[in-house]
Amino acid sequence: MSELLEGNMLVTGSNRGIGLELVQQLAEGTAEETHIYAGCRAPEGAGAEALRDLKTKYPGKITILKLDMSDEDSISAAVQVVNKQIGAGGLNLLINNAAINQPAKPGLLAATEKKDMMEVYETNVVGPFLIAKMFLPLLKRAAEMSSPENDMGDKMSCRRSAIINMSTAISSIHKCPETFAHAQMYPYRASKAALNMVTRCQSEDFKKHNILVTAIHPGWVRTEMGGKEAVLSTKESVHSMLAMMSSLGNKDGGLLLDWQGNAIPW
Amino acid sequence: MSELLEGNMLVTGSNRGIGLELVQQLAEGTAEETHIYAGCRAPEGAGAEALRDLKTKYPGKITILKLDMSDEDSISAAVQVVNKQIGAGGLNLLINNAAINQPAKPGLLAATEKKDMMEVYETNVVGPFLIAKMFLPLLKRAAEMSSPENDMGDKMSCRRSAIINMSTAISSIHKCPETFAHAQMYPYRASKAALNMVTRCQSEDFKKHNILVTAIHPGWVRTEMGGKEAVLSTKESVHSMLAMMSSLGNKDGGLLLDWQGNAIPW
Repeated sequence: MSELLEGNMLVTGSNRGIGLELVQQLAEGTAEETHIYAGCRAPEGAGAEALRDLKTKYPGKITILKLDMSDEDSISAAVQVVNKQIGAGGLNLLINNAAINQPAKPGLLAATEKKDMMEVYETNVVGPFLIAKMFLPLLKRAAEMSSPENDMGDKMSCRRSAIINMSTAISSIHKCPETFAHAQMYPYRASKAALNMVTRCQSEDFKKHNILVTAIHPGWVRTEMGGKEAVLSTKESVHSMLAMMSSLGNKDGGLLLDWQGNAIPW
Repeated sequence: MSELLEGNMLVTGSNRGIGLELVQQLAEGTAEETHIYAGCRAPEGAGAEALRDLKTKYPGKITILKLDMSDEDSISAAVQVVNKQIGAGGLNLLINNAAINQPAKPGLLAATEKKDMMEVYETNVVGPFLIAKMFLPLLKRAAEMSSPENDMGDKMSCRRSAIINMSTAISSIHKCPETFAHAQMYPYRASKAALNMVTRCQSEDFKKHNILVTAIHPGWVRTEMGGKEAVLSTKESVHSMLAMMSSLGNKDGGLLLDWQGNAIPW
């Protein structure tokens, strides 16, 4: 499972929900040399207490990183911190997990304002776009430094150099008629469809560097965003996703896969 | 052809390119009672001279409307102007044609900044989203006032009440591997994929009002955006699109169709 993942990793939005569980299972299940950069908006705040506890639980394995997806300077500063610390191996795995929805609104047309559309896009699309762009030198370094032979014969893998963009089943334009009624969420849906496009563009763009880029739907998970009725625990979802991620190869670039590895149509 | 379209119409981005040609052919080919609201950012500017000439050429048929897709107040003011003038028939056809790309840049990753991503999304997605939301009462009025019997038996048609969102073939996430190399354009692609999602959401959302919503790819057209090497003239593209639009019915809601009516995968 996550034993098969290794190296230097960055997880955004890591102070709660799926992000926190990703850091937990990666810290638990990987070899000692693995290092996890855990990005979150307010590392000192009350909302990051569980993440700080993880850092204590796995000494030397986790660096907590101040990282606000809506703030270009914050991303730039995070790149500098990681760049100083990471060494010759580069960044093997970037998981763009941070995302927002409109908390107090069901996303109905009448309640959706320009501000909602712009803010959700800024965090869910422009943030991951900029992170990938700014961490590209470190991802390229990882691709150059690690040997393809380690990777099941494939040039591309999550152990070598990869970007995983967290998407959602409701990003599927094709499936919209099935899903619209119970989750209208215009800003969120539009942002995730755009993120899928960015994912597929990056997959084409970064092939030449042997960097794998794909999008994952974590399932309907019991988090603050998913709600209490959701069918999967964060533990189950993350366990499946990490197992699946560790088996991704060349053929999986530029897809939208669910937590079990099934492709979802655009 | 466009004779089959009638009623009150609004075309955004109508001072040049495809928008201008839409106004020209609609003014030329429709019955006298048809009225065209031609939106553009600067109706008094040098860039709207050709549009002002059309207004003179077809007296009483065209109202030029100040409309900046990136400015919520501008959209709101335009709704008020149209609302005062339009009468009981409502708005039959809204063509969201206005869009921007990054003019001086090829859209390569390295040259694409946060500002580009945000501005292109604001005009290409949030603008059409807000226009549809704010003109919805007038579109509903048109759907209620016009008789389904006029419409080939279908409840929905472009003669009754419809929104057409101008998209592009390169909005297709599915086709990205074919198209990426010669048109990277991250901000534009991401925005148009998001617009496709908004289109499909609106199609579901507005079905209950009998409002048809679909997205159209105009072809590769010789405009400022399409460049001189493009294969279609604006005249040919618009001629085909209007013929196609006049034949759309219930089954065509929530699709991405090319100028000849062929569906493009998401």
